[in-house]
Amino acid sequence: MTSFESDYNNGAHPAVLQHLLETNTEQSASYGYDRWSELAREKIRAACQCPDADIYFLVGGTQANATVIDALLPSYGAVVATETAHINVHESGAVEASGHKVIVLPSHEGRMLPSELADYLRRFHADPTWEHMAFPGMTYITFPTELGTLYRAEDIAQIYAVCQQYGMPLFIDGARLGYSLAAEGCDMTLPWLARHCDAFYIGGTKVGALCGEAVVFPHGAPRGFFTIVKRHGALLAKSRLAGVQFDALFSPLLQAHGSAASLPEQGEGREDSDMLYFDISRHAITMAMRLRQLFVEAGIPIKDSPTNQQFVVLTNQQMDALMQRVLFETWEPIDDTHTLCRFVTSWATTDADLSTLAAALKSIA
Amino acid sequence: MTSFESDYNNGAHPAVLQHLLETNTEQSASYGYDRWSELAREKIRAACQCPDADIYFLVGGTQANATVIDALLPSYGAVVATETAHINVHESGAVEASGHKVIVLPSHEGRMLPSELADYLRRFHADPTWEHMAFPGMTYITFPTELGTLYRAEDIAQIYAVCQQYGMPLFIDGARLGYSLAAEGCDMTLPWLARHCDAFYIGGTKVGALCGEAVVFPHGAPRGFFTIVKRHGALLAKSRLAGVQFDALFSPLLQAHGSAASLPEQGEGREDSDMLYFDISRHAITMAMRLRQLFVEAGIPIKDSPTNQQFVVLTNQQMDALMQRVLFETWEPIDDTHTLCRFVTSWATTDADLSTLAAALKSIA
Amino acid sequence: MTSFESDYNNGAHPAVLQHLLETNTEQSASYGYDRWSELAREKIRAACQCPDADIYFLVGGTQANATVIDALLPSYGAVVATETAHINVHESGAVEASGHKVIVLPSHEGRMLPSELADYLRRFHADPTWEHMAFPGMTYITFPTELGTLYRAEDIAQIYAVCQQYGMPLFIDGARLGYSLAAEGCDMTLPWLARHCDAFYIGGTKVGALCGEAVVFPHGAPRGFFTIVKRHGALLAKSRLAGVQFDALFSPLLQAHGSAASLPEQGEGREDSDMLYFDISRHAITMAMRLRQLFVEAGIPIKDSPTNQQFVVLTNQQMDALMQRVLFETWEPIDDTHTLCRFVTSWATTDADLSTLAAALKSIA
Amino acid sequence: MTSFESDYNNGAHPAVLQHLLETNTEQSASYGYDRWSELAREKIRAACQCPDADIYFLVGGTQANATVIDALLPSYGAVVATETAHINVHESGAVEASGHKVIVLPSHEGRMLPSELADYLRRFHADPTWEHMAFPGMTYITFPTELGTLYRAEDIAQIYAVCQQYGMPLFIDGARLGYSLAAEGCDMTLPWLARHCDAFYIGGTKVGALCGEAVVFPHGAPRGFFTIVKRHGALLAKSRLAGVQFDALFSPLLQAHGSAASLPEQGEGREDSDMLYFDISRHAITMAMRLRQLFVEAGIPIKDSPTNQQFVVLTNQQMDALMQRVLFETWEPIDDTHTLCRFVTSWATTDADLSTLAAALKSIA
Repeated sequence: MTSFESDYNNGAHPAVLQHLLETNTEQSASYGYDRWSELAREKIRAACQCPDADIYFLVGGTQANATVIDALLPSYGAVVATETAHINVHESGAVEASGHKVIVLPSHEGRMLPSELADYLRRFHADPTWEHMAFPGMTYITFPTELGTLYRAEDIAQIYAVCQQYGMPLFIDGARLGYSLAAEGCDMTLPWLARHCDAFYIGGTKVGALCGEAVVFPHGAPRGFFTIVKRHGALLAKSRLAGVQFDALFSPLLQAHGSAASLPEQGEGREDSDMLYFDISRHAITMAMRLRQLFVEAGIPIKDSPTNQQFVVLTNQQMDALMQRVLFETWEPIDDTHTLCRFVTSWATTDADLSTLAAALKSIA
Repeated sequence: MTSFESDYNNGAHPAVLQHLLETNTEQSASYGYDRWSELAREKIRAACQCPDADIYFLVGGTQANATVIDALLPSYGAVVATETAHINVHESGAVEASGHKVIVLPSHEGRMLPSELADYLRRFHADPTWEHMAFPGMTYITFPTELGTLYRAEDIAQIYAVCQQYGMPLFIDGARLGYSLAAEGCDMTLPWLARHCDAFYIGGTKVGALCGEAVVFPHGAPRGFFTIVKRHGALLAKSRLAGVQFDALFSPLLQAHGSAASLPEQGEGREDSDMLYFDISRHAITMAMRLRQLFVEAGIPIKDSPTNQQFVVLTNQQMDALMQRVLFETWEPIDDTHTLCRFVTSWATTDADLSTLAAALKSIA
Repeated sequence: MTSFESDYNNGAHPAVLQHLLETNTEQSASYGYDRWSELAREKIRAACQCPDADIYFLVGGTQANATVIDALLPSYGAVVATETAHINVHESGAVEASGHKVIVLPSHEGRMLPSELADYLRRFHADPTWEHMAFPGMTYITFPTELGTLYRAEDIAQIYAVCQQYGMPLFIDGARLGYSLAAEGCDMTLPWLARHCDAFYIGGTKVGALCGEAVVFPHGAPRGFFTIVKRHGALLAKSRLAGVQFDALFSPLLQAHGSAASLPEQGEGREDSDMLYFDISRHAITMAMRLRQLFVEAGIPIKDSPTNQQFVVLTNQQMDALMQRVLFETWEPIDDTHTLCRFVTSWATTDADLSTLAAALKSIA
Repeated sequence: MTSFESDYNNGAHPAVLQHLLETNTEQSASYGYDRWSELAREKIRAACQCPDADIYFLVGGTQANATVIDALLPSYGAVVATETAHINVHESGAVEASGHKVIVLPSHEGRMLPSELADYLRRFHADPTWEHMAFPGMTYITFPTELGTLYRAEDIAQIYAVCQQYGMPLFIDGARLGYSLAAEGCDMTLPWLARHCDAFYIGGTKVGALCGEAVVFPHGAPRGFFTIVKRHGALLAKSRLAGVQFDALFSPLLQAHGSAASLPEQGEGREDSDMLYFDISRHAITMAMRLRQLFVEAGIPIKDSPTNQQFVVLTNQQMDALMQRVLFETWEPIDDTHTLCRFVTSWATTDADLSTLAAALKSIA
């Protein structure tokens, strides 16, 4: 059955898989020292305009979050996040497993307000009992948020300014980063983002790869990071698996299909936006906007979201009927008769999928 | 340059990659609920003759070790292992990262002696201060060992008996399990092994996969294991990546090349030994034994090892000269003029590779 | 200056100190095996009417909380508490230091509502993604709460019933337990409380001892608890320090002043309420109620609290003026011109202290 | 029965207890801010000739070790210690509980050899796989050792030089520090020691206090140490308990018996050696040397130890007979017919105790 359940229930984008195939017989170093990882790092540094960035490829999002947070915090440090943050809700306590508290601020459709972060930190540092409390040692935000919403550049700039004022690193979870940058109305670029945080990751698993997240430290990695990665069980022996995929994702599509071994040539008019990673992101956004339109036309309430996750309010009757036709996720009950449901697009979403959905929506009208 | 550095500096066995390719366009559930993971579980249960086994696919060896050990131990428990155990030496303290001590027994060419385990446990429980010490809550052995050696069935049976006497689970690290079972002189089968421990894993990364280890609990998984996996950042969103690969590895080669979607048919004379996993293992062993012969003929001392890792004693002069011709790992200095070096074979080792090595050995004679 | 800052800025009750003095020259076993610890355990078992209870003496409250919670939870378990819970606010992340998340429910003047606990657990177990979340493995409440309020017996009975329904232990933080049981309107006794939870502690530090909390497991301690205590650095070598103090606290005052070595004789009309622990508690409550009256007479808003902590709303002008005369704690700003302040009584609060406060209040009227 | 079991089965030195008594009615701040803690800090700074030292009072030895080690190491760091180190053997895995591995070097009668530390570190940093191993981030030694032996100043100076070469803090566990410094042949003073490490603690529990260890950071405490102490459950609410005791221990005996509130006057010819802490230490050493002599005269083999712990080799027959007369600890079996036994002296050991032992030894001759 056609599925809109998630952006991780498809395989890899064909160009990514193709690159795995065409590089398979080549021998290489391991543990991050293979040449594709090095190529991918160079391409990502170029795309971020961060020539000195340290870049590590981890396997998944929870792993990337737990590892980076553990690396950025002192033992007694806590991470500040919103109530709906993935690390607070859906990571089985992986941050706490390394001994760190998640300090929770209110969520505004998934977003942290710069003013609320500033207020909290001001109150914390003014509290005479602050030494008896978990120490806010860094800030974590997701972009896009778990609810598909975006920050404006101004908000992230302000959050980063507050963090810098208190000497706290800012870490941006970009599990679906491409869908932010490709969204209509997004006023940020990858280089801008890299200049406004201390660490972020470029999600691969949900943007066309089989697995893999590129963790970027624009100003250099924390001391001992390689060992920290290994200690978290997050070091790939066959690191080519991640390296080859990100080499493909950060190459122009044609190149990704052919040989991706050469470095991107600068100054030849090549645009970052030619890269497969952004192609995939744009495609998913286009399909998501068309999907929105189908719900709007069907008169079904839909939440604001410019990204590839769309949240609609279905009556339980509509929900049950629709589930006979297409797959999607129930997000949370709203009341006794309504449920918030999630529909997600990806590189794999086709015109036919949308037609199936359109027909399904008509059938339950 | 021809490399004998490791069994993880090649890509995947072509049949494994092919299966990824041919299943790529199919949508599937995630987080372990995809149908290939379920198929692979059924095939592994059959191969282990453990119809009730719980099986989870994790990404890598350190991750599998840390996660399983954390799941099997109470908070105050420690794991007993040899001094040379991978968890004690080369995992950056991942076991300790979850709060557990590694209690070290002597290593006999990588092996734990059942008698030394029994002695240690008897002394521990007789010690009036035992409650002040880390509690030995489980035992960990590697098979084959880090030094390429094997246990005899009798040894593992005795170790397991000691463990059962003290109510301690036995966990076997099978990062290179196939190379044990395929080695000449190995007096165990996969079903025998599954009956003589509480948990083990079937290593994929080093036996033909791009990544993936199949953790098998013959008598059922510890409570909460799914959440523990997630908490360790070890849960694959696109679990198909592991499922498809193990589906291929536990299918006969022909089937692996074709469609692996059907369940293995029982009672039709098919032998487990037809499976790709064992094909790969046998090939690497055959090549390793030919490689041994080359060193023997060259008069170079070589340690006893019936598996795919071979350890030779080179003069530093020989070592430097050989390194001009082929790649291999230096293991550890023996004295000022000699070094222990490691040569490893895999599915990818070819006749040509061995010829290159033969020529190289002649050139330094 | 007269201080109402806390119930831990005085030394020990004289009878407690006297007992330390008169037992000092006697040699004894250590690590909890001294005879005073054993005497104190027997007396507490009798006072709780729990002949089979396991009892351990730890040094302080944060330590007792962190150790007991770590012992009661599986590695992947989280503890459910209110937002204002001491473990969530003022223990520097000690629970998280052992890898466990604190799951936060709303605080109703410090109290958890049984209905909100039940709702949360029902939603959690109905959530299809529950395995991706930290697992609620136990419940923690404080009695009295951090805000000086009490539960009714009915509330605790309901909370315990919900916990039992979900197989979760209930742990009651009794850092100030005596002040609950001695409060007017408290409809519970120590034996009743012991029957309605799985673990609790009888706070000594804040009820007349120099240090020490008696952790009581009415149905027996978790496996390995002694080792867990040691592992948390919470095992006293000279355990007599805690044993002697609790021996005095759970003896009648006269006996506490004389020899406390003999076991309490049952069935001789002696009431638990004769014990020093309850004497101290009643004295502090009496003084707290007189202190309340002073604020009421002064027309200063005071929060409902039947226990030894009293929270009053002072204008910042009143606060500054009062601080010239007596010591107390500022709790939290209410608005730009008002502050919530805390006044605490203890065994050491005297008539003269209250007269000083009365005069001070008059002076700022 | 007369006991030589330990130096923690007596109460406090009478002067220590007396000081608790005479200060009991005074109100004070808490959590380390009481005035006796401040006085004790000043006196210890003076005794160490470290005017800038940061000093914290913790309750016990395991707690002090676990807290300081956690504070000095990065998350991925391990502590280097000997095989017989208390942290490796008798602390129930408290170091590992905070995520840190104990890297074990050989024990030479309890001592670490500077050359073996240097060798290990040289090999570690030369190993191409070092990033896959737990990182040696600090060194831990005990003084005196667990076996009652001492380091020479030269050894500690060399160990510290090696540590400094590798940027690793050196932490000295001084649970019985006084007995080192008071031992015949000890060529170190407290100020010398404070100049040759980064952290150490002055044990109180085993040197005349009821509890308490003074953790000294001669060059300043690690960032966040107060919060780390709290997070480890190691912060005393009534910190006066430790402060008053150390105020007495670091006062001249007469002063300790009288009022210890005034600061020690410098430049009046007062010697540190007048302080109660050193009086207690010297007394225990004197008694230990007389105890040695009794065993020597009885022809019983005794290990070299200039400190208050004496280890003798008894036949099991002797051991059983002696146990009828005096209490002592069996340390470990030597062979089927001999056992190593431990006899310990303290402030409380009397002439009469030694006479009892002498008589007992004669009776078994």
